[in-house]
Amino acid sequence: MKDKKEKIKYYDLGPLIMPKSVAIVGASYDADKVGHIILRNYLNAGFSGKLFPVNINAVGDLLGLKVYKTVSDIKQKIDLVVVATPASTVPEIISQCGKAGAGGVVVISSGFAEVGNVDLQKQLIENAKKYKLPVIGPNCLGLVDIKSKTDTMYLPSFKLDKPIIGNVSFISQSGAIGSIVLDLIDHEGFGLAKFISYGNADVVDESDILAYLAEDKETKLIIFYLEGVKDGKRFLETIKKYGLKKPIIIIKAGTTAQGATAAHSHTAALAGNSEVYDAIFKQHGLVQAEDLYDLLYFAKIFEMSPLCIGNKVGIITNGGGAGVLMTDAICKNGLELAQLSDKSKDNLRKVMPGIVNITSPLDIGGDADRIRFKNAIDAVAGDGNVDIIVAIVLFQTPGADSSVVAEIVNAKNKTNKPFIVISIGGNYTLAHRSMLESANIPVYESPMAAARALKALIDFSNAKIQKK
Amino acid sequence: MKDKKEKIKYYDLGPLIMPKSVAIVGASYDADKVGHIILRNYLNAGFSGKLFPVNINAVGDLLGLKVYKTVSDIKQKIDLVVVATPASTVPEIISQCGKAGAGGVVVISSGFAEVGNVDLQKQLIENAKKYKLPVIGPNCLGLVDIKSKTDTMYLPSFKLDKPIIGNVSFISQSGAIGSIVLDLIDHEGFGLAKFISYGNADVVDESDILAYLAEDKETKLIIFYLEGVKDGKRFLETIKKYGLKKPIIIIKAGTTAQGATAAHSHTAALAGNSEVYDAIFKQHGLVQAEDLYDLLYFAKIFEMSPLCIGNKVGIITNGGGAGVLMTDAICKNGLELAQLSDKSKDNLRKVMPGIVNITSPLDIGGDADRIRFKNAIDAVAGDGNVDIIVAIVLFQTPGADSSVVAEIVNAKNKTNKPFIVISIGGNYTLAHRSMLESANIPVYESPMAAARALKALIDFSNAKIQKK
Repeated sequence: MKDKKEKIKYYDLGPLIMPKSVAIVGASYDADKVGHIILRNYLNAGFSGKLFPVNINAVGDLLGLKVYKTVSDIKQKIDLVVVATPASTVPEIISQCGKAGAGGVVVISSGFAEVGNVDLQKQLIENAKKYKLPVIGPNCLGLVDIKSKTDTMYLPSFKLDKPIIGNVSFISQSGAIGSIVLDLIDHEGFGLAKFISYGNADVVDESDILAYLAEDKETKLIIFYLEGVKDGKRFLETIKKYGLKKPIIIIKAGTTAQGATAAHSHTAALAGNSEVYDAIFKQHGLVQAEDLYDLLYFAKIFEMSPLCIGNKVGIITNGGGAGVLMTDAICKNGLELAQLSDKSKDNLRKVMPGIVNITSPLDIGGDADRIRFKNAIDAVAGDGNVDIIVAIVLFQTPGADSSVVAEIVNAKNKTNKPFIVISIGGNYTLAHRSMLESANIPVYESPMAAARALKALIDFSNAKIQKK
Repeated sequence: MKDKKEKIKYYDLGPLIMPKSVAIVGASYDADKVGHIILRNYLNAGFSGKLFPVNINAVGDLLGLKVYKTVSDIKQKIDLVVVATPASTVPEIISQCGKAGAGGVVVISSGFAEVGNVDLQKQLIENAKKYKLPVIGPNCLGLVDIKSKTDTMYLPSFKLDKPIIGNVSFISQSGAIGSIVLDLIDHEGFGLAKFISYGNADVVDESDILAYLAEDKETKLIIFYLEGVKDGKRFLETIKKYGLKKPIIIIKAGTTAQGATAAHSHTAALAGNSEVYDAIFKQHGLVQAEDLYDLLYFAKIFEMSPLCIGNKVGIITNGGGAGVLMTDAICKNGLELAQLSDKSKDNLRKVMPGIVNITSPLDIGGDADRIRFKNAIDAVAGDGNVDIIVAIVLFQTPGADSSVVAEIVNAKNKTNKPFIVISIGGNYTLAHRSMLESANIPVYESPMAAARALKALIDFSNAKIQKK
């Protein structure tokens, strides 16, 4: 894919990802088969483009649609072909797609290099390259584009919570990890733009997808589950070009020797040396997460907060112990507790009851109500020594209720500093957390997780500034 | 509290924690006041012992009970006196309790050394010591004993999820942290025996409480939020004696310089040097958690699993990527991936479909159903090379449903090795997680958290064996 001048060419994934017409090869009459499920999902989702079921044993309509025996029989423009037939049939289908001038193909089927069928995989690649056809997969879940209602996932929809539309896009080498993260996105309070599960990466690889999403107007930030790259040099050039254009939050699996072996038998990926990955990710501004939850926790702050290079954290809390834990957490992550200016302290002394000690973290007491929260947050948010605002709201206390939520939303709308909330607890707390997140305020349950997310935001912001 | 022979004496907390009669001083006629709320909570909970409301301005019955002007007026045996009156009145009330021969006192009131009222605190201590009276607090939430229906918490009960009865007891220096953890215990699938929030620790200190719970038959393990100890030598002797008797899972707040300062203004605690704490905790078998969630995650595995000195983990997964992440997580925490014996591999080849690669981690495929899970788990659990069983069940996949839960419960009941499940996802997954946890199988959402919990279990088990 590279020419002599080292300028990388990427596949054009636009038609494939936001298709106006979709053929589904392997659209079975059996309601339990993958191809049938995908077709039905398209119909249920209200996809507004054209749908062409393809089944070599076509014997009549399927779910009210005409069925074609092969892709070649369709004779209309096809943006996306989804293939869910046995592995052995796939290379020939790829050729048919190429001849038919399809925009691209997603191969859901597995049974290629990941189980030792290397020759079959080679043939798939050869046929795709012959027609310069972008092929995603095989051995993948395919893709989701919320806006165009494209969804090639064949998983039972009642088993996953559906993400709402948003501006986070998600790339996953693993289908299962893909489904987990999709299932959790709504719970973490943000929305999805596009999801691409790319499996064995035989033709379209991680670099093509990264480049596409980096240029995609609907994608504000990218989250990425990676086991190993196909073409290291190409990947390096790609992240060099795009690493700081948008935040790319990445979890690299197979960072231990045994994990790398496991990754190889999973997607036939060569996991490579983890120190090398660490170094290049850092150099090019990629944000590394160590855990799936951190992937989501980091995405949340990048999605909801402005960039921020300062590391001084102003903490307001209605629980002393939680203030101590948050202070420990930020210090362990290289951030600092902001010390309030004398002016802020004077102002606070005027409005706080005598029992409140005007210091950092600012513990406003277990009986704090919305007025005390408002006064405290106004003072801390307005203080020039404070770069980041952390409000710890323990909703178990008598004064903390949805009126405090309202004050926090008001205060957040008045500031251009990152503003996060820590709230830890059961059902009553979770209800208030949803309110805050629907107002674009990231809420964390764990002080350590929140501090790691803040650190990630600051590191990316600094890298971006330095590059300018 | 120590005699010349260095034998430590501890306060007898039995009557106080499991009282048959309770006086509530500050039982107001105003339904919003703390003393009123505590009295009403006792009545609502169906406390079967005697209740004595005490109010210096007594003018008639309160909630159907006779009100006494002072503790001295009660003239009956009182196991526990709960004090919720202004700080300035507390030392005199302590003396009255001493004279009346009360079993012990919990002082909910704040306004002592934590806000600079050092003299008032000294007087409280003097009066308590004069009568050898165990006093918990001040500046605390008091205590909960599920079995005797003792609950001195004044927080609005609809704001907290109620723990069910269990065998984990919880000590917290901070009231707010106490309320958070209580709120989360049920969500983490285990139950509570006793909760003690001890605030400023003026009389009864952390050593008394630890010693009491270590001897308590209803307490299998102890979780502990600590900011700083009152008497280092006494504490050291206590954990030396009890550290390996039962698991003590501890989170030490104020481990950074700024965190230590914050802890001091919170409970007037001297947080001390964190390296010293680390070293003595380790030496005496205490299990350290770095985050509130780890406190719960560790408690769950200690509560539901046998001890285990081996570190070889057998992983079964229906999602390849999750298997890679779990492998990374255990290796990063010093555990090892178990390699299956040839016999197990032969057996697995007979029962697994050809597409399943018989290796470690054992990826049984995204289409695995209950039969495949059963066969895989039976082989791994029965393998002599495996010390710990980890089943990763991604409930988003077509074959994973509550029939897999049933197979896992059966398999867990047949083995005496620790057996945990990793399941990550939204509502459908959470429903299945509850089923597993109600069968005493610890479920984790994060591979890293699960691996840290396993490491904690192994470390404690090894320390316990070495001591024998």
